[in-house]
Amino acid sequence: ALNDAGLETADSLYVSNMLADELQGQKHLGALIADEAGLSGIEALNVRAATASGAAALRAACQAVASGMVETALVVGVEKMSAAEASPVLAKALDAEFEVPVGATVLNQIARLMAGYLERYRPPADALAHFSVNAHANAAGNPYALYCDRQYSPADVLASRLIEAPIRLLDCAPICDGAAALLLAPAGHPRAGRVRLVGSAAATDRFRLSDRPDPLRLRAIERSTNLLLEQAGVRRADIDLFEAHDAFSITACLSLEAAGFAAPGTGWQLALAGEIAPGGRLPMATLGGLKARGHPIGATAIYQACEIGLQLTGRAGSTQVPGARLALMQSIGGIGATAISHLFSA
Amino acid sequence: ALNDAGLETADSLYVSNMLADELQGQKHLGALIADEAGLSGIEALNVRAATASGAAALRAACQAVASGMVETALVVGVEKMSAAEASPVLAKALDAEFEVPVGATVLNQIARLMAGYLERYRPPADALAHFSVNAHANAAGNPYALYCDRQYSPADVLASRLIEAPIRLLDCAPICDGAAALLLAPAGHPRAGRVRLVGSAAATDRFRLSDRPDPLRLRAIERSTNLLLEQAGVRRADIDLFEAHDAFSITACLSLEAAGFAAPGTGWQLALAGEIAPGGRLPMATLGGLKARGHPIGATAIYQACEIGLQLTGRAGSTQVPGARLALMQSIGGIGATAISHLFSA
Repeated sequence: ALNDAGLETADSLYVSNMLADELQGQKHLGALIADEAGLSGIEALNVRAATASGAAALRAACQAVASGMVETALVVGVEKMSAAEASPVLAKALDAEFEVPVGATVLNQIARLMAGYLERYRPPADALAHFSVNAHANAAGNPYALYCDRQYSPADVLASRLIEAPIRLLDCAPICDGAAALLLAPAGHPRAGRVRLVGSAAATDRFRLSDRPDPLRLRAIERSTNLLLEQAGVRRADIDLFEAHDAFSITACLSLEAAGFAAPGTGWQLALAGEIAPGGRLPMATLGGLKARGHPIGATAIYQACEIGLQLTGRAGSTQVPGARLALMQSIGGIGATAISHLFSA
Repeated sequence: ALNDAGLETADSLYVSNMLADELQGQKHLGALIADEAGLSGIEALNVRAATASGAAALRAACQAVASGMVETALVVGVEKMSAAEASPVLAKALDAEFEVPVGATVLNQIARLMAGYLERYRPPADALAHFSVNAHANAAGNPYALYCDRQYSPADVLASRLIEAPIRLLDCAPICDGAAALLLAPAGHPRAGRVRLVGSAAATDRFRLSDRPDPLRLRAIERSTNLLLEQAGVRRADIDLFEAHDAFSITACLSLEAAGFAAPGTGWQLALAGEIAPGGRLPMATLGGLKARGHPIGATAIYQACEIGLQLTGRAGSTQVPGARLALMQSIGGIGATAISHLFSA
């Protein structure tokens, strides 16, 4: 990121990571990364919001630069999940007192959402599969994608192994290792690039799924999207591409609905109609998304932001969204207790 | 904090915590605390820098408010250390690859500093004990202090149990539970109080003690103090009280030296001469400090900031620093790899 910006160092470092406490025994990644990157001396903070940690770090860095208290901010996301069993650690995004002790896991909570959706709206059997199909098709053009060489049909998704009913293997983003970095500088900075971060908003919802009046309504996504669009003076129709938190096909679908791009129960129709493909009305997962590029949690949103940078500068290769000028990016913490939305323009 | 400010809610919540991942199985404290506090909907981020996490959250919140992107920010620090053995988790502030596997702990790294100091400068035997004596004397006036009823002499400190030579029990801040909260609002806000946060600066040093040219020089403290004073246009002589990171008597002493209040090897002289008492030249640990008020890690800096608020508004009781107008607060992450400094005025 520094090389790309033509800078030797930055004023500050914001690090995003979710699992290193347990998986690498490391709770002080900011200062460690600053030192290992040869930047010792600069300030370094760690920012988190469970599975939305990358977006949390980006938002804090954005506020830091906007405050004028720092000029340039490096944002680094990193996760190394291959070393150990990550699932029990991921469950710490849930309520340790009232959910985990009675068996809640991220997977079975998401399965509740998917089962509830299928039961309430009764979409075609392959309705949600199209999110995964699109993500894998787009990853083929991305050399940085974990699955840059696997194409699937809706039938493949439906035939894949049942993980936690009704979630199948190909509904899930993979556990993997990864890192991404970007540099934020104020508008007018001599090294400022062509991509602008034009909005940032975050919100929470009731923490436990069981406390929400309608679990299929991701209200933190609703709130953060509305705040963001109002702040930036942008209409939904102006948005050229949408990098959603497609950790599961159902979260991609519910995100479309909560963000106001589709009525409740109809998000899958956009996928089925090809509207989320690079040439469609609202391209999604344009370089593979969490599903096929990979979902190294702390790195994910930074990865998404970098990919959006490629799209907005016409460097996205075979899945370039023609004329992309405005991109929405969203991250979900836990089962939607946190949502953070960012808007980028070229 | 909300009641004190006369507000129903805030725009955002910044949470500081170091150990809940392991000790409470909780990695999503921001949204959880927002919900449990009846504030569900507002954004919530977790900010950390190991043992300097409270100051990290305060700095991020300060930048958020200064950016204008949020108006009011709640900063909440919390730590619950009584539930389990905290030491192995605390060691995750060190390098998990090159330090911890060869036996490094926070305690034995600090012991290296103390031993090195005693060997290089050969101060009187009770030189460092006076930091603990002062802290305990001041805690007597603080009903929120963990040790509000224990006074010690220098001889008591020197007679206390050896924990990790040359560190004795009464050189150490206690492991404990605690929480603290404050509200940040921009200057001119209708509910703005009399205490102003007038500066914030952070820095890092080489991560591993063994990589530093002089381990007894806490360069991150040096850097962050210099940045802070320059930024605020304040001289050291203007500062009325200093809430340092006195997790150990040696860190209080080295902080005095690194912050430029005493030449290397002489920090203890200020303590011995009574200059760090409430009526002295540079009062420290004025309501007990980490040593005697307690050191619930994620809460510590927020606790310090609240105590500074009491001092600057003349509400500090029996250890009120007469005419206190300007207060310096510092936090150390790990063995000085991170340092964060804040300046408050009345």
